[in-house]
Amino acid sequence: MIEYVNLDATKGYKALQDMKRSSVKDLLTTDRVRSADIALGGGLRYNWAAMPVSDEIVDGLQALADEEGLIDKYKALLSGEMMNTGEKRLVLHHLTRGNVLGVKIEKDGEEKGAFYASVLDSIREFSEKVRSGEIKGSTGKPFKTVCQIGIGGSDLGPRALYLALKGWADGEGVKTLNAEFISNVDPDDAAAVIERLDFETTLFILVSKSGTTQETLTNRDLVLETLKKAPVEGLVPSKHMVAVTSKTSPLAKDESMLAAFFMDDYIGGRYSSTSAVGGVVLSLAFGFDTFRALLEGAHEEDVKATECDIRKNGALMDAMIGFYLRNIMGYPSTAILPYSQALSRFPAHLQQLDMESNGKHVNRFGEKVSYPTGPVIFGEPGTNGQHSFYQLLHQGTDIVPLQFIGFRHCQYGKDIETAGSTSQSKLNANLAAQIAAFARGKDDENTNKEFDGNRPSSLIYGDKLTPKALGALLAHYENKVMFQGFVWNLNSFDQEGVQLGKVLAKKVLAGCEGDELLKAYADLLI
Amino acid sequence: MIEYVNLDATKGYKALQDMKRSSVKDLLTTDRVRSADIALGGGLRYNWAAMPVSDEIVDGLQALADEEGLIDKYKALLSGEMMNTGEKRLVLHHLTRGNVLGVKIEKDGEEKGAFYASVLDSIREFSEKVRSGEIKGSTGKPFKTVCQIGIGGSDLGPRALYLALKGWADGEGVKTLNAEFISNVDPDDAAAVIERLDFETTLFILVSKSGTTQETLTNRDLVLETLKKAPVEGLVPSKHMVAVTSKTSPLAKDESMLAAFFMDDYIGGRYSSTSAVGGVVLSLAFGFDTFRALLEGAHEEDVKATECDIRKNGALMDAMIGFYLRNIMGYPSTAILPYSQALSRFPAHLQQLDMESNGKHVNRFGEKVSYPTGPVIFGEPGTNGQHSFYQLLHQGTDIVPLQFIGFRHCQYGKDIETAGSTSQSKLNANLAAQIAAFARGKDDENTNKEFDGNRPSSLIYGDKLTPKALGALLAHYENKVMFQGFVWNLNSFDQEGVQLGKVLAKKVLAGCEGDELLKAYADLLI
Repeated sequence: MIEYVNLDATKGYKALQDMKRSSVKDLLTTDRVRSADIALGGGLRYNWAAMPVSDEIVDGLQALADEEGLIDKYKALLSGEMMNTGEKRLVLHHLTRGNVLGVKIEKDGEEKGAFYASVLDSIREFSEKVRSGEIKGSTGKPFKTVCQIGIGGSDLGPRALYLALKGWADGEGVKTLNAEFISNVDPDDAAAVIERLDFETTLFILVSKSGTTQETLTNRDLVLETLKKAPVEGLVPSKHMVAVTSKTSPLAKDESMLAAFFMDDYIGGRYSSTSAVGGVVLSLAFGFDTFRALLEGAHEEDVKATECDIRKNGALMDAMIGFYLRNIMGYPSTAILPYSQALSRFPAHLQQLDMESNGKHVNRFGEKVSYPTGPVIFGEPGTNGQHSFYQLLHQGTDIVPLQFIGFRHCQYGKDIETAGSTSQSKLNANLAAQIAAFARGKDDENTNKEFDGNRPSSLIYGDKLTPKALGALLAHYENKVMFQGFVWNLNSFDQEGVQLGKVLAKKVLAGCEGDELLKAYADLLI
Repeated sequence: MIEYVNLDATKGYKALQDMKRSSVKDLLTTDRVRSADIALGGGLRYNWAAMPVSDEIVDGLQALADEEGLIDKYKALLSGEMMNTGEKRLVLHHLTRGNVLGVKIEKDGEEKGAFYASVLDSIREFSEKVRSGEIKGSTGKPFKTVCQIGIGGSDLGPRALYLALKGWADGEGVKTLNAEFISNVDPDDAAAVIERLDFETTLFILVSKSGTTQETLTNRDLVLETLKKAPVEGLVPSKHMVAVTSKTSPLAKDESMLAAFFMDDYIGGRYSSTSAVGGVVLSLAFGFDTFRALLEGAHEEDVKATECDIRKNGALMDAMIGFYLRNIMGYPSTAILPYSQALSRFPAHLQQLDMESNGKHVNRFGEKVSYPTGPVIFGEPGTNGQHSFYQLLHQGTDIVPLQFIGFRHCQYGKDIETAGSTSQSKLNANLAAQIAAFARGKDDENTNKEFDGNRPSSLIYGDKLTPKALGALLAHYENKVMFQGFVWNLNSFDQEGVQLGKVLAKKVLAGCEGDELLKAYADLLI
């Protein structure tokens, strides 16, 4: 029987609070760099050598994970238990990339694994026909560009993944359809993208699970209106658009569109990159096999995350160390620092994934919790960040835990040697140097040049950012966030905090309905 | 006589600590929305109605600002006092856009105002010749694209400003040269950009004050190598490149380049957007008049920031409220939330500006301080963020102060009405709604749908994001950060925290020199 209790009701939490703190400086040795290192899926590894957790503390984290039954809860989720307690929904994003436990999940009159597999089949078939030129635009030209219209989870994840694979596809000689993204209701977002498009060869992908997202419907209308006015004879706007939505949404009933691909209520927006939400655009852009490889990497990591031994489970270790930094050490934010320009928008995706999942003040039963939950997440690629906000990370008055990501090889394969080293070596030399600098610090007579050190960091690393590695990276963070939600006894799968703003925005558009404060602000802005 | 004392040695700080706290919920009225509103430069306004500062507290902030002589310190800086005490340099970025006090500043055998004006003249002349086609590429074709190679302050500010003005230029029918940016030493950054370039019509702008920045020189070599190998007869790579650098740098001596534009040691990288660092690329992209207008807006704001009355000085008010939230309320981070897709990279620029300036643990004399200094800064445009990390902002266990930015009109002018309102109205209805939602919260029997409110926010708003408004916005934040540095008694103009990593990275590239820990990490990555 799985029990759901608050963190502060566990023995393990109290034990960790009473345990002797350890310092990164004291712990970090070359032996530890080699041993504090866990295999993830997709050929990646997670290294936690520079984290302030002694063997005793790791044992304490294991004990707490065991006491809270984190792996059992993960398995319950995988088995189709109603884990999204607020919205009373299953949580099935893992099933979009494989069946970890081999359990069949019957729901709404269908077996969900079979449903996701059938969607995948339709994505494969459609994307192959578009890429081969069998399906063409309404004026007879093959599609060259796909443009996703979506916001939040329908934008950040797919966009980050597309950018992450563009250089890989080019380096491998994989045929690529250019992808564009329109998300913001700000009309300048759509205008800037539309300016770059050749309508005859562009296929729009409209993504909204509910089919009612204000921004997405507005942008659809804006795009359709623009296409209608375009001076292209014979252009049929609706034949340049497909939908990704749930079967019950109004969009699913719109038969004017070229095709529709389905998801369901058991895939949260921020967890939807491996569903049709990411699948359609990535399969069109890079081919179905590329998306398939990404799913394989994610599934590999999902399997690894079932391991009970924290020293062999990277997602669990990352989650528990993150909890330790947040609740025992008291650090309120975490920086994501990929040394890979291809991951330029990956921190923005993780920002949503983490902050929307665990930025909660009530537990899964709706009771207020009295301990800090999800941290602030931010980040930019290195080395760029080194010339920007790293000053504060090194010498600021607060400590910010760091999550580095790096790869031995570049994607495009267009590197040169200057001053005795390649650009890629320079990039990774900087990464290695930063970890050491943050951990060890440096004494100096001039206090302005002094570094206290003891800045905790971890490193996810691998050979190259391939589709498989990317899938594993994505799943690693999804599972990390899930485990942390369990630790904090939260429901990580709803997002009630976004509702109030939506309601009030409608009120403003309806004339404020006597709400004088809204009217005062609206007067400044509209 | 100006005195420099630590925050915790002031009477004003103690007085504010003892003062009764106020709550956003209690304070926020429609009257306050109308009155807590200060004119900035460039037609912008700063509204602080939803900040938890009562009249008494604002008086306290004024008293502290007076006690610390913030305006006098600003005037000393403007007068050429050596404000960058660590590097023993003047701080003259204000002078790149006007002379606020009319004081002549003689240094290094020249009058600095005249020097910056002469650089501006050379930018005007060169950019006009390139845009008119008088200066062409080496194969005789006019330049259509400019590509800036720079990192940190030579990248983030100029890139953010370019993106901020692209839609405006299009909407106004201003002739635009496309701008691209290469920053990261990751070879995939350059490869992705180079793929898009037509070398014959591209002009590269190499930006490095010292002329020794590793990333920038590496990317210069990579670009020159690529150009040399390009199958274009008669292409002379160096004739497609100009430099922005200091007169004493190695780059200044490279006569093979088409032109050089100078800056000096008195302009910090993160403050260099209004110098040649931003001026060359913006003048080439949008014309000199556009850059000139940006400078005018910045200068207007610089003049307003000399006002002693905090209720009439937006930058001072923003700075003092920021200090209050950080040091009295104890909030460790701040989110920048522009409701303008054009400002998509502006938060990244502010992240550098703020965190690199005030992320310091020693005061301007090199003594450790015992109070928190600069906060973590992060942000993304709204409404995108609403569908992402706003969950935590509304319902997380920590409070994050918010800085909203909005404009009544869009830039492109390509808006449509759907469901009874334009996209721009929808955008701003959301903005108005969010401020109210964060401030007031909402009771609910279901605690999962309950919002505590009392989330502080401010709003900078204006008619439209024009070059002049953008200049004022940029200067507002520069001056805010400067005032906060004075409050914390910091030197906001050096960045010693970035040095250690550079030294260690060189060591890694040289084989680690017996540093076993570096070698262990290098073994994972290289």
